[in-house]
Amino acid sequence: MKESVIIERVKEKKLRNGILITGLPGIGLIGQVVGRYMVEEVKAKRIARLLSPHFPHQVFMTKNGGMRLIRNSFFIHRGKKRDVLFLVGDIQAMSSVGQYEVAGVVMNYAKKMGVKEILTVGGYSTGKISEERRIFAVTTSEELKTRFKKLGVIFGEARGSIVGAAGLFPAIGQINGINGSCIMGETHGGYVDTASARQIVLLLSKYVDIPINIKRLDQKAAESQKVLKKVQEDIKRNMENQFETTTSAVSSYIR
Amino acid sequence: MKESVIIERVKEKKLRNGILITGLPGIGLIGQVVGRYMVEEVKAKRIARLLSPHFPHQVFMTKNGGMRLIRNSFFIHRGKKRDVLFLVGDIQAMSSVGQYEVAGVVMNYAKKMGVKEILTVGGYSTGKISEERRIFAVTTSEELKTRFKKLGVIFGEARGSIVGAAGLFPAIGQINGINGSCIMGETHGGYVDTASARQIVLLLSKYVDIPINIKRLDQKAAESQKVLKKVQEDIKRNMENQFETTTSAVSSYIR
Amino acid sequence: MKESVIIERVKEKKLRNGILITGLPGIGLIGQVVGRYMVEEVKAKRIARLLSPHFPHQVFMTKNGGMRLIRNSFFIHRGKKRDVLFLVGDIQAMSSVGQYEVAGVVMNYAKKMGVKEILTVGGYSTGKISEERRIFAVTTSEELKTRFKKLGVIFGEARGSIVGAAGLFPAIGQINGINGSCIMGETHGGYVDTASARQIVLLLSKYVDIPINIKRLDQKAAESQKVLKKVQEDIKRNMENQFETTTSAVSSYIR
Amino acid sequence: MKESVIIERVKEKKLRNGILITGLPGIGLIGQVVGRYMVEEVKAKRIARLLSPHFPHQVFMTKNGGMRLIRNSFFIHRGKKRDVLFLVGDIQAMSSVGQYEVAGVVMNYAKKMGVKEILTVGGYSTGKISEERRIFAVTTSEELKTRFKKLGVIFGEARGSIVGAAGLFPAIGQINGINGSCIMGETHGGYVDTASARQIVLLLSKYVDIPINIKRLDQKAAESQKVLKKVQEDIKRNMENQFETTTSAVSSYIR
Repeated sequence: MKESVIIERVKEKKLRNGILITGLPGIGLIGQVVGRYMVEEVKAKRIARLLSPHFPHQVFMTKNGGMRLIRNSFFIHRGKKRDVLFLVGDIQAMSSVGQYEVAGVVMNYAKKMGVKEILTVGGYSTGKISEERRIFAVTTSEELKTRFKKLGVIFGEARGSIVGAAGLFPAIGQINGINGSCIMGETHGGYVDTASARQIVLLLSKYVDIPINIKRLDQKAAESQKVLKKVQEDIKRNMENQFETTTSAVSSYIR
Repeated sequence: MKESVIIERVKEKKLRNGILITGLPGIGLIGQVVGRYMVEEVKAKRIARLLSPHFPHQVFMTKNGGMRLIRNSFFIHRGKKRDVLFLVGDIQAMSSVGQYEVAGVVMNYAKKMGVKEILTVGGYSTGKISEERRIFAVTTSEELKTRFKKLGVIFGEARGSIVGAAGLFPAIGQINGINGSCIMGETHGGYVDTASARQIVLLLSKYVDIPINIKRLDQKAAESQKVLKKVQEDIKRNMENQFETTTSAVSSYIR
Repeated sequence: MKESVIIERVKEKKLRNGILITGLPGIGLIGQVVGRYMVEEVKAKRIARLLSPHFPHQVFMTKNGGMRLIRNSFFIHRGKKRDVLFLVGDIQAMSSVGQYEVAGVVMNYAKKMGVKEILTVGGYSTGKISEERRIFAVTTSEELKTRFKKLGVIFGEARGSIVGAAGLFPAIGQINGINGSCIMGETHGGYVDTASARQIVLLLSKYVDIPINIKRLDQKAAESQKVLKKVQEDIKRNMENQFETTTSAVSSYIR
Repeated sequence: MKESVIIERVKEKKLRNGILITGLPGIGLIGQVVGRYMVEEVKAKRIARLLSPHFPHQVFMTKNGGMRLIRNSFFIHRGKKRDVLFLVGDIQAMSSVGQYEVAGVVMNYAKKMGVKEILTVGGYSTGKISEERRIFAVTTSEELKTRFKKLGVIFGEARGSIVGAAGLFPAIGQINGINGSCIMGETHGGYVDTASARQIVLLLSKYVDIPINIKRLDQKAAESQKVLKKVQEDIKRNMENQFETTTSAVSSYIR
């Protein structure tokens, strides 16, 4: 296998007013959590997998003694108004050359499947924990911007650069005549942020008009919130201890 | 040479009910030991070699003043019930891109030669020394699982991921319509485990129905077992010493 | 996207007696500063962009909520006597393989556009701050050398090697039948040297006979000169302190 | 430029009983010293250069204000009995993939030019300085072995592996139907060994029957021998000092 390939499991008819939603690992794992949760909740149908020599040369062992390559998977959901093609997976390509190649392969497949819009999900790392979990975005289209703004998404505040597929897909999509956006959940950056993922699931549920039961994710978010609170308290306590230690160390030094 | 290539030394007729058995370097060198031992014992015939720009750019100097490229080699053994194609060698490809390329080249050759099943041999590292040396496996086929289970191979217990050709070959094979399994000898992971390799040779001898004299490997295993026992005693003694040192260090600290 | 590509925004007629001037990031950022300033001052027209899998897999977020790939851009300026094709951008290819590929792609485009001469701009690092900011050059053509020498450019003094596009483009150009030069501003190497860039803008303005208002760059140079002076004073002060520290350390040592 | 290429400066008729002699940088720089010296002494004619994206993306500035790519060069010498194609240069390809690609490109060119034998020159590092500077070799052909043995070359003593073009070229040559040898000068490995290079020049002069004046190389070898003696004395003195220092440090510690 010399090139990244998409291997179709089942042939599917073209999407109606198709949107590609990608949820791959990245900052705070927000993309991956969002993608997997939506795919599970809407019971989307697995239709293809993406393999790449730019993914690690590893297979996972499954609990029943099976094995599978590290991969990305495409799922399809036929909605009332529009159809969604989900791309979720274990990993992103490990090099710049690999990222560009995978983006090209995905764009070709998206075109073939009738995708008219690209929506990638990622995290926007602020280094602190925000209660609000705002949603930032950038887009290649003024029309898309208007639509997202109506749903409370913030444009023009996130700055800097987006690394990986979340940025590359809409940008390469535009060259291929498909507009797109990157939707980023505000997050600390240092841990899996289910609470931020939850906000984005709610947004996408409205945006693509698919009812999604958020309960399971709420539970997860509550659990991870508890873990987080504990972590924060530990950090605080450690910092105080450290301060004390430092103080006593200093005092013993200046003694 | 831009691509990995297989260079045939002799043309051979297609295999009858062919099985590809690969024994390449990996955890505990179990694959390599098994592959080399079986090839030697059944006096398999060298029919092709695999060269790759993803192998190191080195040649070995031979004792009679010759030279040869780092390579993998194919050997053939015509059995009573089925024919075996062995792949053994010095090395695996050094990058993910190289691993996928080599896997693709090997699959094409295997198909051409009439291979119907892939069997890779590796080690499963547990970090401790087991007397039992169990054999774990994962497979792409329920039928193969049933066959191996009858021979005492354990499915569903080994977890995590398999790095390299041992995992990639059966997984890429499946895409190419050839089912396969990865057979893993239980091993410490930190040294060459001839005893674990021995168990797998016995298994494969039954599985492909080739009588193999295990004596030479038993001797090696006995020797390495002695070395190992010595190593363990040394480690134990060192740890005790270390413990004493630590204890005294602590006592001097809390004094 | 597997290969580096040039994507034309507008089709343009061939250049008359065309010269390609490249200003990419490098030593002292002199190339980038020169390229961007000239493009802005002559209001050159953006006609194409260069994308490459050898650039980082990142997009920049823009202040109005847009996004764009890391890229290089081509601008065109129709002069009185000759037309200029500018190549400016965020980055150079990140590997040797990428640098050679991009150079090949640019050469093909340059030929197609009627480029007859290549001129790259870089910095020549001396490790000290020169008031004079001399201009060094190397070239593939005696005729070009003569022309630049008349304008005070120094040949045969800069030694060693040039890393990246500034050296590669004229050298690969020559193989493609297009002569070229690399013009290097004398610079410290450790900071952005607007003053050195200024000298090169003046030179190029004469060389390609385009009037360029240097005022904005003079202001920037003055500002950075002030910053620099401050930095130098700080360094000097620190070194004196350090010297004192060292002295006292030594005296305590030899005590 | 995506691939390694050979660019011919002048077309030359095929070699009579051609031999390719390569002298590229490697252990003790012996190959490079031998190659350059022979090319200069026999006034071989430059006929082609080899460029590669696997060489560094750098150009050298020349003393007269010119520039040239990092490269390898082919020179031709029409001998009385057989013609020699020399390959000398600044560098070897920087990756395994690059080394194999360059080897393939060189083999194609060698075949086209009528090369019937490959001879690479390298160093064999022993970590000590031998007065004798023996010459070791490995070869792909018994016939070549016999010929070299008559000239005092030692086969079967050098062991381990040869890294880079010196090993790759004869090995890849053999696959292409051209036999070859790698001739290695015994050397310390830690410095440029002109004395060892000298021995190989003498050998090759006999082997390909080209008279070569060794005087200039003798002078260089004598000079570097002096430098070396000085270095050795310094090392010895330093080691004695270090020993003393260590001793006193220890004594002050156990005081």
